[in-house]
Amino acid sequence: MSVACIAKPGIVGQAGTARLLATCQDRPGIVAAVSGFLYRHGVNITHSDQHSTDPEGGRFFLRQEFYLSGLENCLDELERAFEHEVASEYKMQWRLVPAKRKKRMVILVSRLDHALMDLLWRVGRGEMPADIPMVISNHPDLRAHVESFGVAFHHVHVPEAHDAPRGRGLTLPEERMLEIMDAEGPIDLMVLARYMRILSPAFVKRFPQRIINIHHSFLPAFEGADPYRRAAERGVKLIGATAHYVTGKLDKGPIIEQDVIRVSHRHRLEDLKILGRDIERQVLSRAVRWHLEDRVLVDGNKTIVFA
Amino acid sequence: MSVACIAKPGIVGQAGTARLLATCQDRPGIVAAVSGFLYRHGVNITHSDQHSTDPEGGRFFLRQEFYLSGLENCLDELERAFEHEVASEYKMQWRLVPAKRKKRMVILVSRLDHALMDLLWRVGRGEMPADIPMVISNHPDLRAHVESFGVAFHHVHVPEAHDAPRGRGLTLPEERMLEIMDAEGPIDLMVLARYMRILSPAFVKRFPQRIINIHHSFLPAFEGADPYRRAAERGVKLIGATAHYVTGKLDKGPIIEQDVIRVSHRHRLEDLKILGRDIERQVLSRAVRWHLEDRVLVDGNKTIVFA
Amino acid sequence: MSVACIAKPGIVGQAGTARLLATCQDRPGIVAAVSGFLYRHGVNITHSDQHSTDPEGGRFFLRQEFYLSGLENCLDELERAFEHEVASEYKMQWRLVPAKRKKRMVILVSRLDHALMDLLWRVGRGEMPADIPMVISNHPDLRAHVESFGVAFHHVHVPEAHDAPRGRGLTLPEERMLEIMDAEGPIDLMVLARYMRILSPAFVKRFPQRIINIHHSFLPAFEGADPYRRAAERGVKLIGATAHYVTGKLDKGPIIEQDVIRVSHRHRLEDLKILGRDIERQVLSRAVRWHLEDRVLVDGNKTIVFA
Amino acid sequence: MSVACIAKPGIVGQAGTARLLATCQDRPGIVAAVSGFLYRHGVNITHSDQHSTDPEGGRFFLRQEFYLSGLENCLDELERAFEHEVASEYKMQWRLVPAKRKKRMVILVSRLDHALMDLLWRVGRGEMPADIPMVISNHPDLRAHVESFGVAFHHVHVPEAHDAPRGRGLTLPEERMLEIMDAEGPIDLMVLARYMRILSPAFVKRFPQRIINIHHSFLPAFEGADPYRRAAERGVKLIGATAHYVTGKLDKGPIIEQDVIRVSHRHRLEDLKILGRDIERQVLSRAVRWHLEDRVLVDGNKTIVFA
Repeated sequence: MSVACIAKPGIVGQAGTARLLATCQDRPGIVAAVSGFLYRHGVNITHSDQHSTDPEGGRFFLRQEFYLSGLENCLDELERAFEHEVASEYKMQWRLVPAKRKKRMVILVSRLDHALMDLLWRVGRGEMPADIPMVISNHPDLRAHVESFGVAFHHVHVPEAHDAPRGRGLTLPEERMLEIMDAEGPIDLMVLARYMRILSPAFVKRFPQRIINIHHSFLPAFEGADPYRRAAERGVKLIGATAHYVTGKLDKGPIIEQDVIRVSHRHRLEDLKILGRDIERQVLSRAVRWHLEDRVLVDGNKTIVFA
Repeated sequence: MSVACIAKPGIVGQAGTARLLATCQDRPGIVAAVSGFLYRHGVNITHSDQHSTDPEGGRFFLRQEFYLSGLENCLDELERAFEHEVASEYKMQWRLVPAKRKKRMVILVSRLDHALMDLLWRVGRGEMPADIPMVISNHPDLRAHVESFGVAFHHVHVPEAHDAPRGRGLTLPEERMLEIMDAEGPIDLMVLARYMRILSPAFVKRFPQRIINIHHSFLPAFEGADPYRRAAERGVKLIGATAHYVTGKLDKGPIIEQDVIRVSHRHRLEDLKILGRDIERQVLSRAVRWHLEDRVLVDGNKTIVFA
Repeated sequence: MSVACIAKPGIVGQAGTARLLATCQDRPGIVAAVSGFLYRHGVNITHSDQHSTDPEGGRFFLRQEFYLSGLENCLDELERAFEHEVASEYKMQWRLVPAKRKKRMVILVSRLDHALMDLLWRVGRGEMPADIPMVISNHPDLRAHVESFGVAFHHVHVPEAHDAPRGRGLTLPEERMLEIMDAEGPIDLMVLARYMRILSPAFVKRFPQRIINIHHSFLPAFEGADPYRRAAERGVKLIGATAHYVTGKLDKGPIIEQDVIRVSHRHRLEDLKILGRDIERQVLSRAVRWHLEDRVLVDGNKTIVFA
Repeated sequence: MSVACIAKPGIVGQAGTARLLATCQDRPGIVAAVSGFLYRHGVNITHSDQHSTDPEGGRFFLRQEFYLSGLENCLDELERAFEHEVASEYKMQWRLVPAKRKKRMVILVSRLDHALMDLLWRVGRGEMPADIPMVISNHPDLRAHVESFGVAFHHVHVPEAHDAPRGRGLTLPEERMLEIMDAEGPIDLMVLARYMRILSPAFVKRFPQRIINIHHSFLPAFEGADPYRRAAERGVKLIGATAHYVTGKLDKGPIIEQDVIRVSHRHRLEDLKILGRDIERQVLSRAVRWHLEDRVLVDGNKTIVFA
């Protein structure tokens, strides 16, 4: 690594801020190796979280936030050096993410607008570091709402009964969605904000750990359709919502966040739906923000959330 | 009803306090009929809750607390009059419960003591209006704990694999338990405070809406065995507990109360169990107190809780 | 009361739905008198809540929801009859509110938009039964946001140091606000959705129990200015929000609703403000909805909420 | 450091487990220095938490859990080496605590037993790593309860109006308490489990950050006496409890943990006290456990809790 890149820690600010995410088989010395490397390269660690699933032979997960003045000029060099000096030795999977690079988030939605609007609003207010290149819906209804935020809206009709997946295992509407997205450049995150169609395994496989769904129940209770109705029928005393990464198995992916709200015999199905909106919005927005800030690491079918 | 029983509302106190619980097909005029009756008989209503499952042809549920000076001397008369003047007309199921009559509660437990001890403690402190004639356990371990509260302890061995139900559909240990309980007089409530054996349908049928179980999950998630382990494996972000009436179907009875507590990737199975104890105790104690105060009405497989 | 007005309970629906709110000195027979009256006039009570602050000489509070087919044609008669047959006898303060009459709600706001937008959104979605004739702000910033909901926006400049109250005890800006509101007709509710100016006692007195403020702390902690900063300095582990009726004493009015959210040493002042927005919105929206549905009764400096 | 002490990471277990707590002025390289040191000495870090109050010139706080086989034989050496090789350079305040050394906790109590019993119970069950050499009370009432746990009970009468502090600024009862405690050896933690007397500044000064009090309100609301009564009078919708370190200023010390529970107009003062007991117990037990596990670091008048 050239001297040019060994900078003194400078003014703290978004510009020089980055996050290191890393995971590997646990063994002694990882933290010493990583922090020694960062120190040698003039980096000032400002936050650090780590987790070991089992000190004896488990996996190790690390997230560090740091400042490095002039980071933008030497990111590539830093990455090469990290791979060479640390990661290869520990067989790490890792990435280094400059904080100022906002993630590109596409939102899929059907007719219910509450989760969508909440995300648009929070991004608009600067609560969430994201760019939203587009919203895609299987209904035309929400076009005006979306466009009023200056965000592009695409309507892709998706028949109730999907046509058979085609050549690449994708349905026709999915191929159309990919086309639209590809035209706009790479996507970091897809959020299903009450999107009421099931995506094909082939489509999901293209976005591993990059699709977040909000399910309107406390999973694993009430997987599948109509959870509020089933909650009302079972007579539960709390209703919940769950944000999770989408995998090939419906409502079975790694859970990122959950929360609940108290209900009683007084609440009818319609009341549950209204109360549920609030909890859905909060759960989804927390999960999305954590993802955007690289706080969620996936360990098999579970998540580690450094919130 | 004789004049002797039409008392003036007297000094407010437990002695003259009672609760009226009633349910019938909903139709206009019920509240007018009930409250008119009570007024005519000099009763002062101090709390009143009602619920209608559907104003058009649903069921109506009523709970009223009232004071009547000299109640103890005219309870029978009041009951007869209510049946005659009100209940028969509306085809009500109803009961009238003097508040000073404490309910008799038997606790069944296995080896884990936290839920049991919490109940013994709260009853001892006067937080819950109950008499505890005995604790029954399929293990001898907790005898000293129970007896230190001045409560009788009975150990009834229950083999892991139940012997086949016998003549009346009861297992041998269940027959033994009934014998022990019968010797002590009628039971108003049986609490399964982490009792780890399954009761036979025949046994349960003898105590309709009078057995409360604490299940260590947020039902309907993780019905059945080992919910904490399964919660850990699924990677949920909240764990819960559910208190419900026991019916013939395992973990399917009417839910009385539920609550949850936040957990994270840091919590191992053992941590979940420790955290869970606190939420189990709170959920169970709330459900039991509500039952003891006649606040829980059952509507099919749901409860109405006038808390 | 004329026969024309004694209707048979008809199809359940908003049209025939009303709420009776009543309070008086507690004494026996009130419920019998009210429900007998309603029954005689063909009214079907669908919900009923009551509260007695003290069975011995306290106050009695009642809220009943009922259906009466043809209500719109006989409301006046029903009111006259109720006053004559019941209310006068018990010296009740009472009102009878048809559910289909939406309340007229004016929102005052300064620069922070989250609480305002949440209310506009919920009203727009039909979650809250209100008409919003206008939003008034001491800053021009939010005009476009408000007008995009089809709601009129008025900017009334309010100097930091209020000019001395004038003739009627009102400041000049307050006189201007009254003028604007008077031009639009009567106001049922004024909501201070993070309105950062203090209203004069004379202004407040014109809207008794009709101004709701959201204070961004868990009152009585952190009354007055800058609660988030003071919460950060005190190192609290939860931050809260409080919705209360405005009285002449700053942040001392009757509390309608409160809630909290967990924070930690990791949260800086800016984080508290962002987290606080969510809790402010929820607390305010619950309080406003309860007021709009006539669920909040005031007892001195406390509220009774029949939620 | 001698070779004897450079051990290979061994079987994970309490025996070789320790915690490093450290704080110093923040500057680059601290983590690298600490983790490099630990690695060189064969230590395997299993958990690590850090916090920086401000990356530019704030304070840095570190807590690390680690395993070192044979730790018990080389703790002194490891400490000397850490001071020499790391701590002196960064002017750290630090301590190294073997996990198997249980802290010695004295409980002070008056007449209310719920917080005391909860602690005795949790310690007895192994939920909290502590030894309890004694309970001291200004009332004799709870002797039997305490002794049934096999814990010594001392009654020290404390007059309502304290006699004037004496020579060393201590009251006579405080001198007596110190005498009793000194006879039993050093104390790591004193818990005021609803102890209703105020300790003198001179007494408190002897146990800096080693006295935890449970206050039965959500501080800073309702500091001082009778918080439940004042909460009832103010009409709050949530009541709370706060565990904090005791300092010379009443109810002003660093807050460790807080929580709340929902109440309504239905709850009378007596109900608040009963509900409050549950939240007091939970808040206090969490705070005490965190202290016992060295998870609480004090930063001025705030705490950093690595929970």
